[in-house]
Amino acid sequence: MSLLVMGTVALDNVKTPSGLRRDLLGGSATHFAMSASLLTKVHLVAVIGKDFPERHIRFLTKKGIDITSLIVKEGTTFRWEGEYKKEDLNTALTRATQLGVLEGYIPEVAVHQRNTPFVFLANFDPDIQMKLLDRMRKSKFVGLDSMNLWIELKKKSLLKLIRRVDLFVANEGEAKALSGESNLVKAAKYLRRLGPKFIMIKKGEHGVLFYSDSFKFSFPAYPVEQVVDPTGAGDTFAGGVMGYLSQASTTNEQTIKKAILYGTTLASFNVEGFGMAKTAYLTLKDVHQRMNELKKFISV
Amino acid sequence: MSLLVMGTVALDNVKTPSGLRRDLLGGSATHFAMSASLLTKVHLVAVIGKDFPERHIRFLTKKGIDITSLIVKEGTTFRWEGEYKKEDLNTALTRATQLGVLEGYIPEVAVHQRNTPFVFLANFDPDIQMKLLDRMRKSKFVGLDSMNLWIELKKKSLLKLIRRVDLFVANEGEAKALSGESNLVKAAKYLRRLGPKFIMIKKGEHGVLFYSDSFKFSFPAYPVEQVVDPTGAGDTFAGGVMGYLSQASTTNEQTIKKAILYGTTLASFNVEGFGMAKTAYLTLKDVHQRMNELKKFISV
Repeated sequence: MSLLVMGTVALDNVKTPSGLRRDLLGGSATHFAMSASLLTKVHLVAVIGKDFPERHIRFLTKKGIDITSLIVKEGTTFRWEGEYKKEDLNTALTRATQLGVLEGYIPEVAVHQRNTPFVFLANFDPDIQMKLLDRMRKSKFVGLDSMNLWIELKKKSLLKLIRRVDLFVANEGEAKALSGESNLVKAAKYLRRLGPKFIMIKKGEHGVLFYSDSFKFSFPAYPVEQVVDPTGAGDTFAGGVMGYLSQASTTNEQTIKKAILYGTTLASFNVEGFGMAKTAYLTLKDVHQRMNELKKFISV
Repeated sequence: MSLLVMGTVALDNVKTPSGLRRDLLGGSATHFAMSASLLTKVHLVAVIGKDFPERHIRFLTKKGIDITSLIVKEGTTFRWEGEYKKEDLNTALTRATQLGVLEGYIPEVAVHQRNTPFVFLANFDPDIQMKLLDRMRKSKFVGLDSMNLWIELKKKSLLKLIRRVDLFVANEGEAKALSGESNLVKAAKYLRRLGPKFIMIKKGEHGVLFYSDSFKFSFPAYPVEQVVDPTGAGDTFAGGVMGYLSQASTTNEQTIKKAILYGTTLASFNVEGFGMAKTAYLTLKDVHQRMNELKKFISV
């Protein structure tokens, strides 16, 4: 089954201990789509400005991503400028953001995309995420990601939205902030009570905690020695998870574990290069090779 | 094969969000021995004072632990007083330590224990750990744990000791401090070059990173909802690992993974109660039940 994602498409300036790169193709929806497109048909719903490089558009199209609802608006593309320090490559320090065309954006979904059964709301203003959801018909499974900013600024909207989704994805800090719990299992349990039947707490290099009523588990990350740029790792992870679930068309325990294995593997490639340098040229063969390595590691 | 451990036997006062407990049986060697004794024959080498409660001695004996080389000295038993805050249950804040009989202690090993093939040097002054090692004959496999204090105060002694061991166990902070690397895989690689063929970096609730020349992997912790007291979790983990390895008498990839599974499971019980409240009454059946749960979680 196909998958629709709404979120940001951005141009990133990123500084990490490995160097500085400008105008990288980035954004929550882009990283997600890039990852998921290896596994399933992806529809991208987002907005860009007139300044968005044509080569990026060609690139997304070449990846088989349906960009019908990638709208070009008068103005500049959303820009993010961030830095990662050697001491803590897990934490992005935002140096600047320019909303540009994000301001006032209302998502539009083409008619042929409205019945897409799997939907992911990548990090965005929860009110806009809600608008997207309202446009969809017959969604079978909806995933949601957010960020601390929205927990602080729009908690009410976020809580309303959370009630309507099947999977909520949060990083450690977000899960703790939203639940007020410092124990991650308790935090996950709290989030479960807000509505979503599945909770995934991303812990960066420490892997992920999955929680549902019937099963909970921790899953390790693939140990990466050369972390070049972690930007988009969480979205790449979510893209792998949702990509596999939508391709499997089911969300039982076994497919969820396999989906997390895909997400973990894809995210490990993402951090090895700037922007999408690594994920853009990945083949399923590369992914399966590392997946098998990871499977072997944890098979006891 | 049997296992010998040298380290501290302590009386702990511990404060956690779950409450305050006094005079708990604690210490690196005790937690290690308690855990390992479920899997193999354990010889405990340590020192206690005249104030050490008789009931703790009976308890250790009842567990089948050989206490021939648990020496009683004039003076008071080593005492540790620590606190864990709700926000970070991973980090022990030391409120007070009283060395007591630890001061000037030279380990003695009974003749029948000198050929013990598996040896673990639980956290202690590296010069004393070296003395223990010098007393042993025909050690087949030696594991070593240390702490930040010794990295700061006795780095030279520690480095000399590390060269002589097969397995070095460190927590994240120690691994980073000793290697100067912030990436854990790089840190492990650096530690590997110091001598030990196996490196295990403990990440608390995030599990463990294992590193060797031929294979490396991350292994998740069991997700514990009610962390009561994390004291001794690392030693309990190491006890499970070494206990299984000595029982298996081999240290290939498969036994190491299984050993880590035992260590992970035992540590998850340890944190669920104060001191040894949980581990003291564990049966192998309890351990295997949770181990199977953990195995099922990560089997993909």
